[in-house]
Parts: sequence; C-alpha cells; structure tokens
Amino acid sequence: MSAAPDYIVGVDLGGTNIVSLLMTGKGEIVGRDTRPTLAKEGKDKALSQIVNSVKRILEESEAKLGISSKSIIGLGIGSPGPLSIKKGLIHFAPNLAGWTNVPLVDILRDKLALPIFLENDANAAALGEWWRGAGKDVDNLVLLTLGTGIGGGIIIQGEVLHGAWDTAAEIGHMIIHEGGLVCGCGKKGCLEAYASATGVIKRTLAAIREGKKSILADAVKNRWENITCQLVYKAAEKGDSLSRWIVEETARYLGIGIASIVNVLNPEMVILSGGMIAAGALIFKPVRKYARENALAAAIERVEIVPAALSGNSGAIGAAATVLKRTGLL
Amino acid sequence: MSAAPDYIVGVDLGGTNIVSLLMTGKGEIVGRDTRPTLAKEGKDKALSQIVNSVKRILEESEAKLGISSKSIIGLGIGSPGPLSIKKGLIHFAPNLAGWTNVPLVDILRDKLALPIFLENDANAAALGEWWRGAGKDVDNLVLLTLGTGIGGGIIIQGEVLHGAWDTAAEIGHMIIHEGGLVCGCGKKGCLEAYASATGVIKRTLAAIREGKKSILADAVKNRWENITCQLVYKAAEKGDSLSRWIVEETARYLGIGIASIVNVLNPEMVILSGGMIAAGALIFKPVRKYARENALAAAIERVEIVPAALSGNSGAIGAAATVLKRTGLL
Repeated sequence: MSAAPDYIVGVDLGGTNIVSLLMTGKGEIVGRDTRPTLAKEGKDKALSQIVNSVKRILEESEAKLGISSKSIIGLGIGSPGPLSIKKGLIHFAPNLAGWTNVPLVDILRDKLALPIFLENDANAAALGEWWRGAGKDVDNLVLLTLGTGIGGGIIIQGEVLHGAWDTAAEIGHMIIHEGGLVCGCGKKGCLEAYASATGVIKRTLAAIREGKKSILADAVKNRWENITCQLVYKAAEKGDSLSRWIVEETARYLGIGIASIVNVLNPEMVILSGGMIAAGALIFKPVRKYARENALAAAIERVEIVPAALSGNSGAIGAAATVLKRTGLL
Repeated sequence: MSAAPDYIVGVDLGGTNIVSLLMTGKGEIVGRDTRPTLAKEGKDKALSQIVNSVKRILEESEAKLGISSKSIIGLGIGSPGPLSIKKGLIHFAPNLAGWTNVPLVDILRDKLALPIFLENDANAAALGEWWRGAGKDVDNLVLLTLGTGIGGGIIIQGEVLHGAWDTAAEIGHMIIHEGGLVCGCGKKGCLEAYASATGVIKRTLAAIREGKKSILADAVKNRWENITCQLVYKAAEKGDSLSRWIVEETARYLGIGIASIVNVLNPEMVILSGGMIAAGALIFKPVRKYARENALAAAIERVEIVPAALSGNSGAIGAAATVLKRTGLL
C-alpha cells in the first residue's frame, strides 16, 4: 500500500437505495448522499439519480470543506448484475426496470468527467467489509448478502474473486438440496430458495397453509400478503413456536450453505449482511452451530461467522475501495 | 515466467501408487519411477519408498543422461491431507497407515538433500493439468478427482487456491442434498456420498436390494462384494437398464456439484480425473447436460468440462510445477 491518495467516490446502486460516499484515500467518509432508487421509472431516471447524487456530494464538499474536484481520483460503482467489468457494461439488472446492456461506465464518465470503475454490488460489499469493516484484519473472507435474494462476495488474499467472466461468488445459487424448492433463477434447490427473505416467507406461508398455528396471524391481521421476515423474527423472539421453527430451519440452511463454501474456499471469516442480521443471536447462534456441524473440522474450526460492520455503507465503501484497488493504491 | 531452470522432481504420494518424475523446467519428463504404495505397512515403509523412488530416478538420469544432482533445484510432493504447507506437515492421511503429524518436508530434506515443497495431492493434479495438461491454455480451472472419494483442486489466475489453512478445494464435501446420504466424512449429503466410486457402488447395491434386475448379477457371479464402478459402466455400455440409470444419476449428481462450483468460482474449465473418466462420453455427455441445466447461464455457458489429459502423471507433474511456483520460476 502506498501513500493515501486525496479523495475517492463510491456509489452503491441498489434496487431500493442509491448510496454515494465521498471518502479520503485512508477510508474516512467526508460526504454522503442517499436516496430511494426510482427503480420502476426506467433506466434514464435511475442514471440521472446516480449523477445527481454524486454531483450533490461533490458540490457540498467543495462548498463546505474546500475539496476540489481535481483531488478526486475516481469513482467506483457497485451495481447489480450480471455485468462485464472489462466492458463497463451491465448486461441485466433484474430489479431495475429497463436495465439491459447499459454501458454504465461510459455514461457516468461522460456525465461526471471522472475515471469510473465498475464492480458487482455484493463483491463491493465484501471489499468494503475487508477494507474498513468486520474483515479488516483478515485476508480471506466470504460475504453473504441476505435479502430478497442471496448474493455473495469473495475476497482471496485481499483481492476480489471475479472468475473468468465476472460471475463468481453467486453463493445464493449453490444447490444445497438437489430437486428441492424452485429458486427465482429457475433452478431447484438453491440456497437462495430456502434461506433468502423470499424463502423464509414462502416456507412460513406453506406451514400456515398446512394448518400450523402462529401469533403471526394476529401480527398480519390475517392478511398474509403482509408477512415479512422481520415479523417472523419478532414472533420468534416472543416465543411463537412456528416462527422459532422457521428461524431454526433458516439457520440450518444457511449453516449448510456456509459449510459448503468453507469446504471449498477455506476463508478465515464469513460475514452476513442484509436485513436478516437484525435478528442477532437468534440467527447467528444456530447458523454457527449448523456450519460447524456440516463443514470439515479442519476447514471450519477457526472460521468466524459475524455480522457486517458497515451496515448500509459497505457497498459504497467497497465501491470507493475499488478505485484504489484498480489504480494499484490498495 | 523467467528462463526455465535445469531440473525438478515431482512426487505424487497416493494411497495406491507412488509416482516420481524427473522433469526439465520446461516440462519434459526425463525420468519416471512408479511403485505400488505399501500403504498398510506403516509410515516408515512408505517414507523409504518415496526416498528410494527418487534416488532411483536421480541415479538413472545421472548414469544415462549425465544429469548432475546439482542441476536439480528442488522436489515437490503432492500428498493426501489435511496438511500444513507452511509447516511441511501431514496432519493425517486417511489411506496411509500411521500417517499422523508426519513432518514430511523435514524428513525428505534430510534424506535427499534437496529443497522440498509440499502440496495437497489434488491441488498438485490441478496445477499439473494447468501447466502441461487439459488446462494449459486457461488461467481459471477446477479439477475433480473421482475415485474412492472426490478430491478437488482450484486454480485461480494461474495460482493454486489454498485458503487460510490449506484446506481449500474440498469439493467432494459440498453438500448437494442436505439431510441426504451419509458421507465418509460423517456428514450428510456431500457430493462424494453420491458421486464417488463408493457412492456409485452403494447406490447400485441399494437398487439391487430393492429387487431391481441387472446383468451385473452375472458379472459379479452373484457375489456382490465384487461389484466395481467399472463393472457398472461396462454393463451400462451393454444396455443394462439399472446400470444406465445409475450412470445417469451419477452424472446428474456430478453435474449439480459442478453447477454449484461454477456458480461460486466461474472457472473457464472443469477437469475430471480418476478411474470414472474411462467411461468417456457415457459419463461426460450427461454431466455436461446436467451442469448446464443447473448452473446460471452467464456462469456456465462458456465452461468446458473435459477429462484430464495427463492420466496418472498429473499429480507428479503438478508436484514438480510446485517447485517452480514456490521459487518464482513459473
């Protein structure tokens, strides 16, 4: 690592929020903008949101802190994919309407007059946690983003694993039960089909349909379309037996997925991020137990399984770190 | 890559055979010794077999080719594990009697007066195929050794993936069917439990016990303890419907495991090695089909799934390549 450069920008383009950060090369956050993604309003709308978000933090930091745009060495952006880093192209973003074959790097370079570096969103989150978060003292880690789907990022000896065509770390699509539940990707038995928020809700509703009783009925006022993962966790905390069973099963599926990834990659740390981690020990304790039960002892015995430390910022921080990585500064 | 050094030695320590090679730094084989491992006769016996095997090729090459031992820059050895590369220690080798905490590197250095470099056996095979075999034109590959168990080796950007504690690439212990068949490792549902030679035989015998008819009964003369994978493949080639179903199922499990590893690592190539690949198209055709059906399109579409090209030599060639890798010559 050489001397810290002046400033870098990191943008996390999510289906829900766009988070933009201005950071020093040492990793301090000096400017932040976040806005809900107008994901359904088409490609151009979201693109202008990104541009406006970045312009706003650049203008603010110039006005308030006297930071000249000349001292900004580049902008990293974490985007959903599949995408091509070399081409700077988003092939397809399932949660952003109209995002098919978007030359994101070219567009942002034109609008912002900055060097632009593209990274997959979950890879960026993993890099962010490695640089400034839960993984800052380790060199080999795996991050799982637990949300509507399950994404993944893999850091090996301090570098993001991209694979041959930038599709690596699709950990949510490891098959943990061949022939099992249908996943959003169309295949059967993926980890995501069982342990994502979508999977949790599906399994809860299936149990209700089978006639299982639960205080969740009151929580959703018998309107089951209102069920959320958070409600299931809350009900589990209150001792609801169906919800406890659902949480235990979710932890078991996650533990099995983590066991497989640990057997394959032998990381030092597995970081869980996303809404589900708010459940705390309720989920982490059984996840750790099932991971240990299902992985080879030599691979798992020293692995830490921990929550992300940068909460909503890990993706944008990792996007900023991408600038340093690609320019050889980190 | 710098100029090729003089000579290197590679040893593949297997539960069945010890293969030793003398190679030029460019990868030509100039001496070879192979002998059946006296695996049950204790640690010292196998150790002296290794030493004698290496001494023999060194003496022969000196006598016949005038190769001085001074021009040999080191010896690489691929060993079963778990092991520690840094410590040069074999923690435990399940198929070698008495191999617990064996300081293999120190022992061989004392006996052979050469720099010794330790590598995991399946990692060595992957490196061998990358250097001189099926993977010589790609930088990212995964190798599966299909035998009594299923081992794995992973090459990322031309380097062996070791993980934090040298246990990476235990691909046979990815869980493909949680709660499923018990594996040799004691866990349930591992790829190895289904698709190893052991798994194939177990599933065949289970079908026979269920009353399925097969020409295998004649092949083993109704002594089912004589069943082998090879007999199942031969019967499948002859059109035996039970055997065909077993082979198809084996290919399906392998395809599912390959799909998971492709989703996680996005390699350019998956190489299968071991006895099972003798079945040729009978196994490769359905394996490719099931891998494509179960992996994400963006990850699998350009992946080649091919047999190992170096047959019984890939481990020893990779062990030799380890010398070049560790000394910065490759």
